[in-house]
Amino acid sequence: MAVGDVSMPQMHVVKGVRIGSAEAYVRYPNRRDLVVFEFAQGTQVAGVFTQNAFCAAPVHISKLHLSQTNPRYLVINTGNANAGTGPTGLKNAKDTCAEFAKIAGVNENEVLPFSTGVIGEQLPMERLIAGLKPAFESLEDDVWPQAASGIMTTDTLPKGASEQFEIDGVVYTMTGISKGAGMIRPNMATMLSFVATDAPIARELVQKLLKTTVEQSFNRITIDGDTSTNDSCIFAATGQAGGAEITSKEDARYSVVLDVLTRVMKRLAQLIVRDGEGATKFITVSVEGGANTQECCDIAYSIAHSPLVKTAFFASDPNWGRILAAIGYAGVQDLNVDKIQVWLDDVQICKDGGAAADYTEEAGAKVMNQSEITIRVDLGRGSAKDTVYTCDLSYDYVKINADYRS
Amino acid sequence: MAVGDVSMPQMHVVKGVRIGSAEAYVRYPNRRDLVVFEFAQGTQVAGVFTQNAFCAAPVHISKLHLSQTNPRYLVINTGNANAGTGPTGLKNAKDTCAEFAKIAGVNENEVLPFSTGVIGEQLPMERLIAGLKPAFESLEDDVWPQAASGIMTTDTLPKGASEQFEIDGVVYTMTGISKGAGMIRPNMATMLSFVATDAPIARELVQKLLKTTVEQSFNRITIDGDTSTNDSCIFAATGQAGGAEITSKEDARYSVVLDVLTRVMKRLAQLIVRDGEGATKFITVSVEGGANTQECCDIAYSIAHSPLVKTAFFASDPNWGRILAAIGYAGVQDLNVDKIQVWLDDVQICKDGGAAADYTEEAGAKVMNQSEITIRVDLGRGSAKDTVYTCDLSYDYVKINADYRS
Repeated sequence: MAVGDVSMPQMHVVKGVRIGSAEAYVRYPNRRDLVVFEFAQGTQVAGVFTQNAFCAAPVHISKLHLSQTNPRYLVINTGNANAGTGPTGLKNAKDTCAEFAKIAGVNENEVLPFSTGVIGEQLPMERLIAGLKPAFESLEDDVWPQAASGIMTTDTLPKGASEQFEIDGVVYTMTGISKGAGMIRPNMATMLSFVATDAPIARELVQKLLKTTVEQSFNRITIDGDTSTNDSCIFAATGQAGGAEITSKEDARYSVVLDVLTRVMKRLAQLIVRDGEGATKFITVSVEGGANTQECCDIAYSIAHSPLVKTAFFASDPNWGRILAAIGYAGVQDLNVDKIQVWLDDVQICKDGGAAADYTEEAGAKVMNQSEITIRVDLGRGSAKDTVYTCDLSYDYVKINADYRS
Repeated sequence: MAVGDVSMPQMHVVKGVRIGSAEAYVRYPNRRDLVVFEFAQGTQVAGVFTQNAFCAAPVHISKLHLSQTNPRYLVINTGNANAGTGPTGLKNAKDTCAEFAKIAGVNENEVLPFSTGVIGEQLPMERLIAGLKPAFESLEDDVWPQAASGIMTTDTLPKGASEQFEIDGVVYTMTGISKGAGMIRPNMATMLSFVATDAPIARELVQKLLKTTVEQSFNRITIDGDTSTNDSCIFAATGQAGGAEITSKEDARYSVVLDVLTRVMKRLAQLIVRDGEGATKFITVSVEGGANTQECCDIAYSIAHSPLVKTAFFASDPNWGRILAAIGYAGVQDLNVDKIQVWLDDVQICKDGGAAADYTEEAGAKVMNQSEITIRVDLGRGSAKDTVYTCDLSYDYVKINADYRS
């Protein structure tokens, strides 16, 4: 079902990271629905979280703890999002951290909680807490693929990315996992991603690296425009592979890390789109020639969110009128439509705001029949550009989301 | 297929309005695809048009002519939107007016053109112009239902509303038609609406009445958030039923007309949602307790646009988590989620931002099984309110839009 190459690469071990799991029966029996990450002492951790006003209890607690100290542990459950659960939900998220902290011998605020699953039900605390010890006791380092499987909800496949890179003769590793099929199933659709490197990086730069790369990856994907209450992305630098700490953006090593992290994050984000519910096509929407990045992003999202554009892609219909209409209602001021060019891959479909003279439906249909397609739009009013990734809208999207709780 | 009562009422004749039609074979043979409206001398006409930057050629010409004079004729074709057609499209829209003006003996700018249909193809001018004379010659007053049928594209039913009201012993009529199944099929999906009264109203008030009522009707419906390149709404007051002209908002008669027009416009707009492609449910999203109307509108649209909320309605699933999530990502600043209440009809599903204690899935499911449902949200931070109308998202939506051009 997933589109294109979605294979799990060799998941290199990150020095200073151990992962454990347990069957806690949060929602379903016989499922490793509890995953724990351990970071070595001295690991620098950063996080970005959902902008949804209804953010879930674990998001509140994770943000709080992250503001107080550098966490040593992440505790992640699937099956229940602990969202829309009021004061009891907050207490349950805190209690989970406290109970795990006792087992691990750390402070409560050195544990970050993450939950994904059904909204509006309380966590089964007894079973969840009973699972913490076995999860802790199972900690080992070479189980990233298992972690990727453990955090899945209705994903059809585990999602991972891993690279090794060398700086000054030291080999470093960057490995990460993600889950979610976009924001398309809010009950089980939380986007979660956990990425770690054993390179030594100062905390403020860890935060900066995460923010910068999230903008180009998780903040540039859409399945249907819905934003979950639990979305979270964590980046940790353990420093356990050695070398002097990177403390400045001017340090040439910063750029190396940035490049690697950008690739890993884009891959993890794009895997979510490739596994988008009902997706049959992976679509890159690239807008260039803008006066600024924001308007390029607005137009790219307008196209990527349009149900009409998405159903046309599902139908392999080179319906450029729908693309033009989506550009037109993106709300960009003073847009001169007579300067707009649109391509499907290398086929120019619109020239100067109208149909390209040498465009043929056959040429358009040939591109539309591919499973990977790039829409490129040139606004002809500047040099800014931006790119968004999405998928098509199929029967199966409706089927899955209509049937979900049945 | 359409939801609820969609019957055509008795369509009262509006004094000073005549309607003609012809088979011009714009796209399909044997179809009355050309409709003409004639307004008596002295009729005051106002229009509102799509905000899409890619607005179609006839929209440009209609706006231009309307700024120059009071039009006497509307010429409407279906089958071809004359959008994305460049300078040739503009010339064709102008030529249509000029040719019709010759036949009717008026100035070119006393004719407004309207087109709806496929984007990006030039009008078949020879056939279109050949149809103008028979359309003109067929003008008569008691054919509003035929006009409603004539402007349909993929609508499953003609849409009309009509009321009579009395002021100072004079009986006035307000009659209108609309077409479109929302903005859901941009190739054929243009929303068009033409409303006329024989009450005597000054031009600036005609414009004001139209703007005010459009805000509560056509600007408060959504099928899928897409906005067409051709949307147009025209309101004409012929004054032919007699009486002194209404020249001030303070005139008590203004309020009477406003009330009637509001009902007629709401009905015409809601009929579009009821006929929304694949719609099985008509949903009213009412947001109250806001700090201002804009935030109520933003949240109502956020709910009404959410594919997840819409598929849940299709599935009759009282999935309040999806509604809360949509409220949360509407972008309203400083929203205190702990003050939010949500009802499905009279069933309170969320209290103070969480599940209502006495809420049961059974009670929620009972409401969700209805074909007409009201979601009511109280933000608990003010007294502003707003309402949006939408439908669910079904398999058929995807089917129709994916298959449309095949």
